[in-house]
Amino acid sequence: MDKIFHNFPRLYCPQAMTKGAILNLPEDGSHYLRNVLRKTIGDGVRLFNEQNGEWIAKISAETKKFMTVTMDEQIKQPDIQTSEIHLIFSPIKKDRNDMVIEKAVELGVTHIHPVLFARTIVRDIKPERIQSQIIEAAEQCERLSLPHLSSLTDLKKLLGEWNKDIPIFAAIERTDATPLLQAASSNSLQKLALLVGPEGGITAEEIDLLNTRSFIKPVSLGPRILRAETAVFYGLSLLSAQMKA
Amino acid sequence: MDKIFHNFPRLYCPQAMTKGAILNLPEDGSHYLRNVLRKTIGDGVRLFNEQNGEWIAKISAETKKFMTVTMDEQIKQPDIQTSEIHLIFSPIKKDRNDMVIEKAVELGVTHIHPVLFARTIVRDIKPERIQSQIIEAAEQCERLSLPHLSSLTDLKKLLGEWNKDIPIFAAIERTDATPLLQAASSNSLQKLALLVGPEGGITAEEIDLLNTRSFIKPVSLGPRILRAETAVFYGLSLLSAQMKA
Repeated sequence: MDKIFHNFPRLYCPQAMTKGAILNLPEDGSHYLRNVLRKTIGDGVRLFNEQNGEWIAKISAETKKFMTVTMDEQIKQPDIQTSEIHLIFSPIKKDRNDMVIEKAVELGVTHIHPVLFARTIVRDIKPERIQSQIIEAAEQCERLSLPHLSSLTDLKKLLGEWNKDIPIFAAIERTDATPLLQAASSNSLQKLALLVGPEGGITAEEIDLLNTRSFIKPVSLGPRILRAETAVFYGLSLLSAQMKA
Repeated sequence: MDKIFHNFPRLYCPQAMTKGAILNLPEDGSHYLRNVLRKTIGDGVRLFNEQNGEWIAKISAETKKFMTVTMDEQIKQPDIQTSEIHLIFSPIKKDRNDMVIEKAVELGVTHIHPVLFARTIVRDIKPERIQSQIIEAAEQCERLSLPHLSSLTDLKKLLGEWNKDIPIFAAIERTDATPLLQAASSNSLQKLALLVGPEGGITAEEIDLLNTRSFIKPVSLGPRILRAETAVFYGLSLLSAQMKA
């Protein structure tokens, strides 16, 4: 029975879901169902959100703008998630930034913090665009929750406002710091963060700034020089495997 | 002193390198140095290959086709690498396949095996193009060796010819297999492989085929459904961290 549902398109649903409820799907999702997947009245969909878990529903009406669904039954309980994985990263060039967002969602990040570093080249982000990428990636990877996207800030401000109970594993190039896997396995952390700087690296001043904070744990990402997005993939893979998140 | 060299462009050099030798760089690299980086006679470069390690050299002449360099001194010994990380994967769509190759190089893969699965959509690859991507990624990430690229084959043939001493950690979706980090940490392997199927997943017949081989170790890549390229990034990150490769 489970298998049938896996063929249903899976969409994020911001509205509250209860048995028998009739909901208009958001415009984007409606468009996708009708014009891309050619779904129509009677077809099944899966809908999810953080509060209500995952449900199956049937398309029960359509207008030019909206597909209307009738909620059927819950197939997944909401996650009781207490662990947090934060990603603190410098925006990078378009395609590679898209990959960072998509992979962060797939690898279980709960909080995304775009941060300006001295050598950040892309100094502007489009939060709406990133939010759509987050939703799309969550739909695809069967996550129930969306990571929280923070506003763009700078490193100093981020550090000033940081919750000191959450250690930040900071990837600093060409250091002899503890390997990340070892650093992250030394205690069973429920909340942690990965920090990855821009393509051009973190400056000496920024390293000094980081070193003034006790919650910063410098880590090594291995013997090779990783591109910024690879450092994110590598770091998040290790952290999420370690936390079983 | 080391720091100065880090600003020198870093190129793969297929020829043997010895002190004082005069070499014509390959056409691609020559073009890149002259037309992209605007380098000319007297400028320094870093050259590397698996056999000779990494060297600094000076551009000592140029023709329309070639930049000629005079070898100066060795700055890195060749790696004495005994560990092997094999990547067995289904070709996927263009941009994402490019990322797989680039990240495989960055994450320390030594052998790349493109394999046709039943659900592989991209059934043709351009080995020359992949080889250029391999070289470019190795130049960028400060690797000394290039991974070996095998010819495209199919799963049955690959399994038939496989060296049984090298375990293959096979990522099979929706299984309750051992998590990869745990499977890979249970013994200190010097040679291992990661197998990731196509976007559409591995078929039941392919799973049966895999299960007939004792060197296949089914593993789980965590609770979410990862895209094919994410499964590669995740798996290789864990394996390379585990092997300290």
